[in-house]
Amino acid sequence: MGTKEIRTALKVDLNRPAKDQPGLHNRWHPDIPSCGRIANGEVVKIECLDWTGGQIKNNDSADDVKNVDLTQIHYLSGPFDIDTAEPGDILLVEIQDVQPFQDAPWGFGGVFHRQNGGGLLDDFYPEAAKSIWDFEGIFCSSRHIPHVRFAGLIHPGILGCAPSAEVLAEWNRREGELIAANTDPSRVVAQPPISKGAHAGSAGPELASRVAKEGARTIPGRPEQGGNCDIKNLSRGSRVYLPVHVPGAKFSVGDLHFSQGDGEVSFCGAIEMAGVITVKCSVIKNGMAKLDMKSPVFLPGPVEPQFGPGRYLTFEGFSVDEKGNQRFLDANVAYRQTCLRVIEYLRRYGYSDYQVYMLLSCAPVQGHIAGIVDIPNACTTLGVPMDIFDFDIRPEAEVVRQDMGSCAFASK
Amino acid sequence: MGTKEIRTALKVDLNRPAKDQPGLHNRWHPDIPSCGRIANGEVVKIECLDWTGGQIKNNDSADDVKNVDLTQIHYLSGPFDIDTAEPGDILLVEIQDVQPFQDAPWGFGGVFHRQNGGGLLDDFYPEAAKSIWDFEGIFCSSRHIPHVRFAGLIHPGILGCAPSAEVLAEWNRREGELIAANTDPSRVVAQPPISKGAHAGSAGPELASRVAKEGARTIPGRPEQGGNCDIKNLSRGSRVYLPVHVPGAKFSVGDLHFSQGDGEVSFCGAIEMAGVITVKCSVIKNGMAKLDMKSPVFLPGPVEPQFGPGRYLTFEGFSVDEKGNQRFLDANVAYRQTCLRVIEYLRRYGYSDYQVYMLLSCAPVQGHIAGIVDIPNACTTLGVPMDIFDFDIRPEAEVVRQDMGSCAFASK
Amino acid sequence: MGTKEIRTALKVDLNRPAKDQPGLHNRWHPDIPSCGRIANGEVVKIECLDWTGGQIKNNDSADDVKNVDLTQIHYLSGPFDIDTAEPGDILLVEIQDVQPFQDAPWGFGGVFHRQNGGGLLDDFYPEAAKSIWDFEGIFCSSRHIPHVRFAGLIHPGILGCAPSAEVLAEWNRREGELIAANTDPSRVVAQPPISKGAHAGSAGPELASRVAKEGARTIPGRPEQGGNCDIKNLSRGSRVYLPVHVPGAKFSVGDLHFSQGDGEVSFCGAIEMAGVITVKCSVIKNGMAKLDMKSPVFLPGPVEPQFGPGRYLTFEGFSVDEKGNQRFLDANVAYRQTCLRVIEYLRRYGYSDYQVYMLLSCAPVQGHIAGIVDIPNACTTLGVPMDIFDFDIRPEAEVVRQDMGSCAFASK
Amino acid sequence: MGTKEIRTALKVDLNRPAKDQPGLHNRWHPDIPSCGRIANGEVVKIECLDWTGGQIKNNDSADDVKNVDLTQIHYLSGPFDIDTAEPGDILLVEIQDVQPFQDAPWGFGGVFHRQNGGGLLDDFYPEAAKSIWDFEGIFCSSRHIPHVRFAGLIHPGILGCAPSAEVLAEWNRREGELIAANTDPSRVVAQPPISKGAHAGSAGPELASRVAKEGARTIPGRPEQGGNCDIKNLSRGSRVYLPVHVPGAKFSVGDLHFSQGDGEVSFCGAIEMAGVITVKCSVIKNGMAKLDMKSPVFLPGPVEPQFGPGRYLTFEGFSVDEKGNQRFLDANVAYRQTCLRVIEYLRRYGYSDYQVYMLLSCAPVQGHIAGIVDIPNACTTLGVPMDIFDFDIRPEAEVVRQDMGSCAFASK
Repeated sequence: MGTKEIRTALKVDLNRPAKDQPGLHNRWHPDIPSCGRIANGEVVKIECLDWTGGQIKNNDSADDVKNVDLTQIHYLSGPFDIDTAEPGDILLVEIQDVQPFQDAPWGFGGVFHRQNGGGLLDDFYPEAAKSIWDFEGIFCSSRHIPHVRFAGLIHPGILGCAPSAEVLAEWNRREGELIAANTDPSRVVAQPPISKGAHAGSAGPELASRVAKEGARTIPGRPEQGGNCDIKNLSRGSRVYLPVHVPGAKFSVGDLHFSQGDGEVSFCGAIEMAGVITVKCSVIKNGMAKLDMKSPVFLPGPVEPQFGPGRYLTFEGFSVDEKGNQRFLDANVAYRQTCLRVIEYLRRYGYSDYQVYMLLSCAPVQGHIAGIVDIPNACTTLGVPMDIFDFDIRPEAEVVRQDMGSCAFASK
Repeated sequence: MGTKEIRTALKVDLNRPAKDQPGLHNRWHPDIPSCGRIANGEVVKIECLDWTGGQIKNNDSADDVKNVDLTQIHYLSGPFDIDTAEPGDILLVEIQDVQPFQDAPWGFGGVFHRQNGGGLLDDFYPEAAKSIWDFEGIFCSSRHIPHVRFAGLIHPGILGCAPSAEVLAEWNRREGELIAANTDPSRVVAQPPISKGAHAGSAGPELASRVAKEGARTIPGRPEQGGNCDIKNLSRGSRVYLPVHVPGAKFSVGDLHFSQGDGEVSFCGAIEMAGVITVKCSVIKNGMAKLDMKSPVFLPGPVEPQFGPGRYLTFEGFSVDEKGNQRFLDANVAYRQTCLRVIEYLRRYGYSDYQVYMLLSCAPVQGHIAGIVDIPNACTTLGVPMDIFDFDIRPEAEVVRQDMGSCAFASK
Repeated sequence: MGTKEIRTALKVDLNRPAKDQPGLHNRWHPDIPSCGRIANGEVVKIECLDWTGGQIKNNDSADDVKNVDLTQIHYLSGPFDIDTAEPGDILLVEIQDVQPFQDAPWGFGGVFHRQNGGGLLDDFYPEAAKSIWDFEGIFCSSRHIPHVRFAGLIHPGILGCAPSAEVLAEWNRREGELIAANTDPSRVVAQPPISKGAHAGSAGPELASRVAKEGARTIPGRPEQGGNCDIKNLSRGSRVYLPVHVPGAKFSVGDLHFSQGDGEVSFCGAIEMAGVITVKCSVIKNGMAKLDMKSPVFLPGPVEPQFGPGRYLTFEGFSVDEKGNQRFLDANVAYRQTCLRVIEYLRRYGYSDYQVYMLLSCAPVQGHIAGIVDIPNACTTLGVPMDIFDFDIRPEAEVVRQDMGSCAFASK
Repeated sequence: MGTKEIRTALKVDLNRPAKDQPGLHNRWHPDIPSCGRIANGEVVKIECLDWTGGQIKNNDSADDVKNVDLTQIHYLSGPFDIDTAEPGDILLVEIQDVQPFQDAPWGFGGVFHRQNGGGLLDDFYPEAAKSIWDFEGIFCSSRHIPHVRFAGLIHPGILGCAPSAEVLAEWNRREGELIAANTDPSRVVAQPPISKGAHAGSAGPELASRVAKEGARTIPGRPEQGGNCDIKNLSRGSRVYLPVHVPGAKFSVGDLHFSQGDGEVSFCGAIEMAGVITVKCSVIKNGMAKLDMKSPVFLPGPVEPQFGPGRYLTFEGFSVDEKGNQRFLDANVAYRQTCLRVIEYLRRYGYSDYQVYMLLSCAPVQGHIAGIVDIPNACTTLGVPMDIFDFDIRPEAEVVRQDMGSCAFASK
C-alpha cells in the first residue's frame, strides 16, 4: 500500500571491473542483450558507474586522466526493455532523482590531454589536469579549486534508447564520411567503431564481437536518439521524450554528473560520479508521429538552483579568434573566446587558468547563443553565478589575490 | 531637490527622415562629431529611432521588409561625450529603463529576403515576411501571429563606444580578409564600408565623406566594443561595462527591441521599435587593465520575465545538417536544427513556418550551448516558454488545430 | 492600425488642489458620479495623485507627515463605468503598467505620528518621520536612507468597484460595532464615515453631502471589494478579478506605490507617488457565481524583481510580546516581533531605528505566515533581500558601522 | 581522502517503539542527556522518526489520527553536544539534505479532531481526516487527494538547542499565565508540562521523572530557541543561526516534512515522514551579541521549487469573520478567511473541503501578510501554485467536475 521501496532495476559494483559487469555496456547497438525489464509506468532505481568505469581515482595526480582509455567509455547501465514500447513510440522518462552513492560522496572533473581527448581550449591548455569534488548533501566543493562551493544541478549526461540497425548504419555512414574528409591529421574529428575496449553487456562471444565491430561510440549525442547530450538541465524532475527505434526501446542511462556548466568545455568537464538515478518510464504510443518529433524534447524540473538574474556576471565573446582572424558566424569560436574572457577575469584572484577552465566546465554557468545572424560575428554569452564564490567577484569589488593552491596535474 | 525630470540628452523626430537628423549616425568611426555631453554619473534619457530609421511601416505588406535599404542601418543615437572618459577606461552604463514612445506603441519583426539580408534559416524560408506587434504596457501581441502574448524583455540591441582609428583599421583588415577569402558568390559573409546610405551625424561634407568611406558597418557586434550584440538580457536594470577607445568615449545606443529570443534568428527578428532609453553613465578609470577586460561584461537586471524552469518546453538540436551531413562541432548548424525542430512541433497547431520562425526570433526563448566537445556533434537547446501561448502546448495535451491567419508577405 | 496612443481616461493636475478635481474622490459610495466610461476590453491609462492628494512635499521635514489630514485620504481616480458590467459580474483588470510621472520622478515614505495615524510599531516609534525616494528608471534610492537601492515592485495600493448600498450598509454596521465595542480610548480601531474632508467627485452639493455622511472610508481593504489591499504583488502584468456590486461597476484606482514591503508596516509605509496606471478592463458575466468568489483573486505578473531564494536574510518572530507576555496565536504580535528583530540586526550598521522601520515598509521584503497552529505561538518570517544594500549584510560578514545620516523628522 | 561516507550520528528503528529509543526525546529540558557529540564543523546524518513516533499508519482510516496521543509528540533526535559551543554562541546549522528513508517512501497529512488537537479551521471541519502521500524521487502524490502532484520543499519542522533552566522557567511562567487567564473551557490555549507520554531519552528514572514534570512541550516554536517553527523554507541548502543556551548547545532535530504550506493550517498538516537529515554544525563564538540576535535567523537554500510568479493563483482574505463580525487587524482571522476562499474555489472541481484543507496544509502555498496596518482590516494572501494540478485551475478555464474520491476518515 505505497510503503514498499522502489525497485532497483540494476545494481553495479564499484569494486569490480566495469567490463565484467553484464548490466553495463559502452557501445550503441540494437543487439546488445537487455539486462532487465521495466513495466510501462514503473518507477525504478538504476545504479551507474562513473563514465570511465572507475578509471579515475580520488587522489592528487592527473596521471589517470592523462592516460584514460577512451575506447572504454562511457559505461552505461542497461539496456532495459520497456514493456509495450515499439518503434515509432516515445519513451517518456521522468527523472525523479539522481544521487551519488552514500558511501562514495565524491566526483571528479578533468582536462584531457591534447593528445588523448582534448577539449574546447586544448590549443591553450594542452596538459591533463584533475579536480576532486567532495559532496555535502546538495553542495560540492574541491580541494583543487578552493573558495567556490555550489549546489549541484545533478543529472545524467547520457540517456537514450538503442538505435535500430538502420539508424546505426546511418550514424556510421555520416560520421565515416566526416572522418574520411578530414585533412588535418592532428585533429580527431570523430570516433569510429573500434573493437578495443568494447563491452557488449551480457552478449555471447560472437555477438560481442559483432557489437564491438559495428557499435557506435557513445561520445557524441545524436539527433535520432539523444544519447550523450550533456544537457545540464536534465536534472531532478525533468521529463524527457525519447524516440524509440527498436522493440522494447532498449533504454540505457549513465554518465551521471553532480554538476556541469553549459558546453562542458573541458570534455571531462562535469563533476563525474557514480550513483543512482530514479526514473519513471512511460510509453507514448505512436508518439513520434503525434509530436512530429525527430530529436528528443524535454521539460526541465522545478528545482534548479536559483541565483536571481542579477547575480550572473556575464561575459561576451565573438567569432574573432585569438590570432585576430575573422570567422564567419562561428559560435564555437565565439564560445571559446567567451571562455577565455572568463579565465582572464578570474585569474586576477589567484586561480590558475586550468582551475578556471575546469570550474567553467562543472559549475552551473549559463552559456547562451546571443546573436547568430549579425554577419560575420556570432556572439555568445557565458553567465557565471557570483554566489558560488566565497569572495566578491563583482567588477566594482576590490581584487584580493589569494593563494588558490593547485589542481592536480600529471607527472612529467 | 530630486523632483526634476530626468534630462533628455537627445530627441528624435519620427516624422523626419533619419538621414537628416544630426543626432543620429549609422557607421562606427572615431571622428563622427559628438551630439552632446553626459556628465560622469549622470542619468539621461536618449530617444532612438527603430534600427531601419522608419523604413518599415505598420501595415500588412512585407514589401518594405523585402526592399529594405540595409546600407542605411542601424541609425544610432549619439555619439555622446562622457566627461572624464579616456582610452583604457571603462564606461559603466546602467540601463535604468527602456520604453516605446507613448504615441507609437508598436513594433515589427521580419524575415529578410534571402537576397537582401537573409537569416539563419534562409535556405528554408527565402521569402520576406513581417509581423506587427502591438504593445499594451509590458505585454505585446500580434495580429500576424495570433494566440501568443508575452511580456517584453525590453533592451537595446546596440550600445558601445566609438572605435579608435587603430581599432577601426583592425576591423576593416580582418573583415576584409574574410570577404576576400570568400569563394561562394551567393553568400555575403561580411559587409565592408560603403558610402551609399552612410550618415555621419553632424559631420561636415568632407568628414562625412571620409566617415562614409572608412566607417565600419553596424551589423556585427565586435569583441573590442560590443556594438550590435543583440543580447536579450541587457534589459531594464542591467549594468554593462564597455571598453573606451577614444577620448570622451563617444557612446552611442540604438536598435531598441521590445523583445528578442536568443539568436535573433530571422535577423530582423526582434520586435524592433523606436523609443526611449534611460541610462546612467559612469566612468571607471583605467578599468580595462583593472578588469583585464577585452570585451564587454554585464550584469543582467533583476526584473526579467520569470516563467519557472519547468515551463520551458525545450528542444534539442545537433550538428547534423538537414541533408544528413555530419558537421564537426558546428553550433550554428546545431542551432539551426534546433529551430527547425521547434517549427515542426508548433506547425501542428496551425501556424505557418514563417510565423514560427518570426516567433522564435522575438519571443523570450532560451538558446543554450549544451555540449560543445562531444565530437563530432555540438548540441544546442532551445527553451520555449509555454506560458506565452493561450493554448496548451505540452506534449501530453491534445492538439487542436486553429486558424492562425497569416503573417504579412511581400507582393509577388 | 495599432499605432494609436492608448487613451488616457483621466488626467489629473499635480498643481491643483485634489478636492477641486472632479475625477477624484475619497470615499466609497455607490452614488458618486462616474467620471468616464471604459469599454469592455479596452485598455486605458488613468492618472492618479499620490494617496494624500499632494499633502506631502519633497523636502527634509516631516512636519507634513505629522500634520497630515487623514480625513482626506485616499484620493482615488474614478469611478469609471465599465460597459456591460452588472452586479454579480467580475471585472477583470489587467495591470499592464504603472509609472511615475516623467516630471515627478520621486515618492515618499513615512512614519505617522502615534496620535495621527500610527503604525505597527507606534508603541516603539511614536514620532513622525519621512523619507524621500528618487527614481532612476526602475530603481529608487533615498537621501534619507543611504546605501540601499532597489528595483520597484510598482503597483496600485487600491483598486476596486463601488459597493452597493447594501454592501455599504454592512460595512458601516460591522465597523460601527467594532468602534462601539472599543474600550481603549487611546486606540482608534476603525474610521467611521466623516463629512470633514470628504470629496465626492463631481457630485452636486446635495449628493456630496450624503456621500460625505454615508461614504465608507478608504483606509481598510474589505472582503466584498478589495479596495486598499496594499498587496505589493499587484504589479505590472497582474490580473485581478474584482466583484461587481453596482451597474457599470464604478471602478476606481489610486494610491500608487513605487514599492512596498509585505505588511506596509509603518502605514504610510510604501513609496507613495503620483503617476499613471495602464489597465485593461474586461467583464466576466456572472463571474462571482461561476468562480464562487466572495473576495478578489489575482494572478501576479511575470516581472517581479528576482533575487534568488538564498539571497533573503530571513528573520523569525513569535507571538510573545516585548514584555514577555504570551499571546495566543497572534500573528500581528508575531509580525511586530519579527520587524523588531530586523531593526535590531540592521541597527548595527549605523541605521537609526526609524530608518529601518521605513525601509521594512517600502523595500520588497517578504512577510510570511510560517506556522499558525502551534499553540500558543504564531510564527511569522520576514525575508530581507540582501542585494538591496551596497554592503554585505550576511551574518558572516564583518560589520562596518557607517554614517547613515538621518531621515526627516518633524520640528519639535 | 574525501571518499568516506558521511557519519550517521544517530540511527533510529522504525520497528521499535519510539519511547524505547534512547536517542529520542519529546520534551525540551536542559538536563536530557546527550546522545552523542558532533565536532565543530562536522557534517553528519541524523535519522528521525516521524513526529508522532509511528502512531500514524499507511492505510485508509483516520482512526489513528483521531486518537493520536499528543502527549507523546514530537519525538526528536538528540540532543547532540556540539564541541566548543557555549551559552551566547550561535550554532550555525547548514541543512545539506533531507531525505525520506529509502524503504519507507511515504508520508501522511492529517486533520486533527476538534477535541484532540484541532487546527485553524476546526470550527468548520471538526472531524479527523488523513491523506497518505507516496514519494517518487522529489515528487509526491496521494491516493486521497488525486490530480495533484508536486516537488517536495523538504525540511525539518523542528530544530533547536536546549533551553537553559532560566529560559525553560520563563517558558513555563508565561505559558502558564496564558493558560490561567483562559476563560473558554472549550479552547486549549497552550500545553503545559505533562508527565504522561514524556520521553527523556537516556535519562535515568529520577531525571526522567523531573524532565517529565518540568520539560516544555514541543508543540510551539519559541522566540529564544526556534524549535517547532514549521518554516517550509528551511529546506535543502538553508543555513540556520540558532541561539545556544547551554554548554554543548544540546542540539535536537525532528518532525521532518516532505512538504508544507505556509501556516501548516490543519496542524498535522505537512506531509509528515520519517527520514534522514544531513547537517553541518558550526559554532559562531559569542554570536548572539555579535548579531544582536534574540530569535533564529536563516538563509533559505537555492533549490526551492520554482513556479514563476505568474503561476500562483492568489486569494485575498480579510479580518471579517464568517459571521460578519469585524475583527481588529487580526491576521489569524484574515488567514482563516483566505483559506476558506481557496476551499470554496477548488470545491468546484469535485474536491471535498477536507481534501482541500489538507492540500493547503501540505502543498507549497505561499501565505503572505499583505497589509497589517489598514485599520480595522488585516489582509493576507494565499498563493496556490497552479502547476501542481494536472488540470487547468485558471479562472478563465472551463470547470470540469471530476470524481476526486475521498480522503481517509475515522470510523464513527
